[in-house]
Amino acid sequence: MSPGNKSNPKALRVIPLGGLGEIGKNMMAIETADDIVIIDAGVLFPAAEMMGIDVVIPNISYLVERADKVRALLITHGHEDHIGAVPYVLKELDVPIYAPPMAEALIRARLREHKLPNAPKINSITPGERVSLGDFEAEWFSVCHSIPDATGIALDTPFGKIIHSGDFKIDHDPIVGNPSDFGALSRIAGDGVFLLMADSTYAEEEGHSDSDRTIVDSIHRLIADAEGRVFLSSFASQIARIQIAVDSAYASGRKIAILGRSMQNYMRIAQELGHLEVPDDLIVSPSTANSLPDREVLFLTTGSQGEPRAALARIARVDHREVRIKRGDTVIISATPIPGNETAIYSTQDDLVRLGAKLVHHKSNAVHVHGHARREELKGLINLTRPQYFVPVHGEYRMLQAHAELAVDQGVDEHDAFVITDGDVLELDNDRGRVNGRIDAGHVYVDGLGLWDEQVNVIDERRMLSEDGIVTVIIPRNAATGRIMGAPHITSAGFVSDDDAEKLFKDTVEELRNYLDRARTGNLEWTQLEASVKGTVEKFLHKRTRRRPLVVPVAIDI
Amino acid sequence: MSPGNKSNPKALRVIPLGGLGEIGKNMMAIETADDIVIIDAGVLFPAAEMMGIDVVIPNISYLVERADKVRALLITHGHEDHIGAVPYVLKELDVPIYAPPMAEALIRARLREHKLPNAPKINSITPGERVSLGDFEAEWFSVCHSIPDATGIALDTPFGKIIHSGDFKIDHDPIVGNPSDFGALSRIAGDGVFLLMADSTYAEEEGHSDSDRTIVDSIHRLIADAEGRVFLSSFASQIARIQIAVDSAYASGRKIAILGRSMQNYMRIAQELGHLEVPDDLIVSPSTANSLPDREVLFLTTGSQGEPRAALARIARVDHREVRIKRGDTVIISATPIPGNETAIYSTQDDLVRLGAKLVHHKSNAVHVHGHARREELKGLINLTRPQYFVPVHGEYRMLQAHAELAVDQGVDEHDAFVITDGDVLELDNDRGRVNGRIDAGHVYVDGLGLWDEQVNVIDERRMLSEDGIVTVIIPRNAATGRIMGAPHITSAGFVSDDDAEKLFKDTVEELRNYLDRARTGNLEWTQLEASVKGTVEKFLHKRTRRRPLVVPVAIDI
Repeated sequence: MSPGNKSNPKALRVIPLGGLGEIGKNMMAIETADDIVIIDAGVLFPAAEMMGIDVVIPNISYLVERADKVRALLITHGHEDHIGAVPYVLKELDVPIYAPPMAEALIRARLREHKLPNAPKINSITPGERVSLGDFEAEWFSVCHSIPDATGIALDTPFGKIIHSGDFKIDHDPIVGNPSDFGALSRIAGDGVFLLMADSTYAEEEGHSDSDRTIVDSIHRLIADAEGRVFLSSFASQIARIQIAVDSAYASGRKIAILGRSMQNYMRIAQELGHLEVPDDLIVSPSTANSLPDREVLFLTTGSQGEPRAALARIARVDHREVRIKRGDTVIISATPIPGNETAIYSTQDDLVRLGAKLVHHKSNAVHVHGHARREELKGLINLTRPQYFVPVHGEYRMLQAHAELAVDQGVDEHDAFVITDGDVLELDNDRGRVNGRIDAGHVYVDGLGLWDEQVNVIDERRMLSEDGIVTVIIPRNAATGRIMGAPHITSAGFVSDDDAEKLFKDTVEELRNYLDRARTGNLEWTQLEASVKGTVEKFLHKRTRRRPLVVPVAIDI
Repeated sequence: MSPGNKSNPKALRVIPLGGLGEIGKNMMAIETADDIVIIDAGVLFPAAEMMGIDVVIPNISYLVERADKVRALLITHGHEDHIGAVPYVLKELDVPIYAPPMAEALIRARLREHKLPNAPKINSITPGERVSLGDFEAEWFSVCHSIPDATGIALDTPFGKIIHSGDFKIDHDPIVGNPSDFGALSRIAGDGVFLLMADSTYAEEEGHSDSDRTIVDSIHRLIADAEGRVFLSSFASQIARIQIAVDSAYASGRKIAILGRSMQNYMRIAQELGHLEVPDDLIVSPSTANSLPDREVLFLTTGSQGEPRAALARIARVDHREVRIKRGDTVIISATPIPGNETAIYSTQDDLVRLGAKLVHHKSNAVHVHGHARREELKGLINLTRPQYFVPVHGEYRMLQAHAELAVDQGVDEHDAFVITDGDVLELDNDRGRVNGRIDAGHVYVDGLGLWDEQVNVIDERRMLSEDGIVTVIIPRNAATGRIMGAPHITSAGFVSDDDAEKLFKDTVEELRNYLDRARTGNLEWTQLEASVKGTVEKFLHKRTRRRPLVVPVAIDI
């Protein structure tokens, strides 16, 4: 696919490469005739149906083909769905990166795991700083989100000002970092806003998001009052939550042991950047924690989403190297389920209760607030910026749609609010906007060392294998004559139990005998033989088992 | 496994075979020295990790071994997680069934799909009816739940009265069927209650459940006010919800077209039993509905849980034979997600919005109430029955635990509230109770025509196949000498793309050559050769791809 034929060379192009129509792997390209800047480069964590895939990254072939135009990759904040694809981008594009400090530190840490063709050029920016990038000039402004140093980006273009909200909420008094800087935004928006792109994650939810402050007392009391040990599980990047836990532990005379490598890494980086204050001697090793009285211990742990390899799931499975649940422990889940994780989360929680833990979650106590703006806050941003054009970003389709409708309700002309999804090419000039064609912008699957685009049928094969397994029919042939030799040999995996296989495959060979006897005497092309064997075996096995394994005939020339 | 050695022959045995520790496949055995009765026989819908499994049923080997003691299968209500395993039970146990009318009709319908060894003996009971069953005498009482004819069961035993709540909520004025009959319960409980077993699904949730009445006006207004066509999606068994939709359609001058075979079946049965009233000529075919003005159409559809083969998902995929979404349609999702279904549900909803539908769900409007009692209602039941012993049923472990704690708070002695899970043998006599041993009571997987217990490794193989696929290494041998002939042949599925496979497998054969050359000249046992080939190929492929396919060496004797 390519952009529309009658593309307008004088228009600004807005091309989402990720994050529009699906939350995750956020990436947005902004293009003029001469220059391209990219905002964010995230990963998507694979859904269950993406069998065996490690992670999903955006397809950047459009950018690679225009590498000489790409001026910079601008980062809004350090969450994986905004920075996780940076190493993959740098393998194909030698582009300078501009990121706020926490994101910069996280990107540097991540790049250590990858071999890159060129030395990365990573620049740390602070809100208010301006960077000139060809046709563009970028300025970052603080927003409040569930990770420190979150920003939005204002981009001066030849057409006017673009404002990209990043992921944000409005919290005038956050625990860590700055509130969303509506003062700066008001100044930036003063000369008029050409295009507003804003976070749609909670565009379906009425009202305002809650401040971090609303959960401080509740978490503090839970930690102070618990008779036994306390485990608090949250996202490792949720530094404000960790600060609340640190303060509560200190005030109630508990030491903290950290479980999970990512929790350690994020806390270290946040401390180095001054986002997290931890009193001296508060942190102890898990083994020290095990030797302290129960009333004096708080474990901070990863795994709030039920991730099977994270500390909390290991503890729930009684598979953690150092820590075991005992009766009287309290486990606080300071997070809500990300859709798709529910089964793993509830199973982990169930196991913890089975082991004797008292479970505290967002339904029973005020222990979590989320990091995205709800409808009243979204209205506030639209009213402050009064944009000519509006593009909802960061959301599944129905959230984008709800956000666009909200913008129209707030005064954006209905022809100027565009619900676009990954790969759409939106062309905007000072008179009008339109979606003009599409580019390749689907998923790229990372599987071990390989990268695949969506068309590769390996995933479909895995899905078939996962349903009813595989049956391989091996047919030996004389290499010289091409004639079939002896009986076929049948082997299977994931299809039937070993007990059932012997008789079933003996019968299958019998079923094939007549057919193969005929084939043996004739001059049958392999493709014809292969199709017939496949069809015969599929039909026979379905009749006998009501299952449909993948049937693969293989000729072996001896 | 078997019950504890020092089992008490004089005790009553309560043995959960399903539904305790996991919601679904509910089944409970109650046993005296001479007799056994079973309450419910449900299925569990397989979780994503149960690769390719159609459905999960309880393990009834304990009952089959004691077939001569089993007097009856008593059914509380007609939901699949309470009746779905009946056909499988009847294949192994020739046991009479007693069920309220709606459940009875649904069981009969289900049995038509199965071949049974004996003619089923199914008895329809009505609340208040008593049935004598050896040591037991059963009486059903009405409860309110999200399907008509829901009941609880009171069981007279030599030890005293058992009350099993069934699935219930308290709604004093339900749309369809009877309220939970606390009058009957009060009479039944009058002489004292030996054991209460009660629904724990919402034992973690504070407050009362809402009445169906609270959503009537909202659904009515949505259907009356919609400018275009309306789709309402709910569970097919949710007859009260369907009655609300029918009444709203009639009042607002819309005809109804039913999409989904199960919706048609449940509606037909409910009408035959007098639970659903549908005005004459209100129901039209989908094709007639397509020819009516938009304002005059309501589609009732299955698929509220995102089930891929249900009508709503087909419509969302533009894959329905008769119905297409058009701009201006309203889709009401009159259900909440069952945990684990979120991804499929949101993806279906997203697709509907993408096609131009206006989406209405429980977060945006009052369009759903659930069918299980919350904590205040659960307290009510405990206080009314004042049981000696308490066993929470129907719930994941943390729900059972929360319910047991609630019962203790309400006055049950803490030694008399038992959180037991499937397979536990609870022995109760008039003095004390204890869990005494365990029986086999895990999952039995139904896969096509086969039944498997949990130990069979086919599921594990499928899981491996789904991650990184399979590599088959075919090694031809001389049948007479056992010597290896020629080079191995390698084939794969779900591992790498065809483009990558050729070179990779050529290199793998090369890697194996040295090893096989040596093996060819020596006298290597196949098991030894097999292990070495497997290890060598696994290591080589992991180095090259960072993937871990299932590697299967196969010897072919020619």
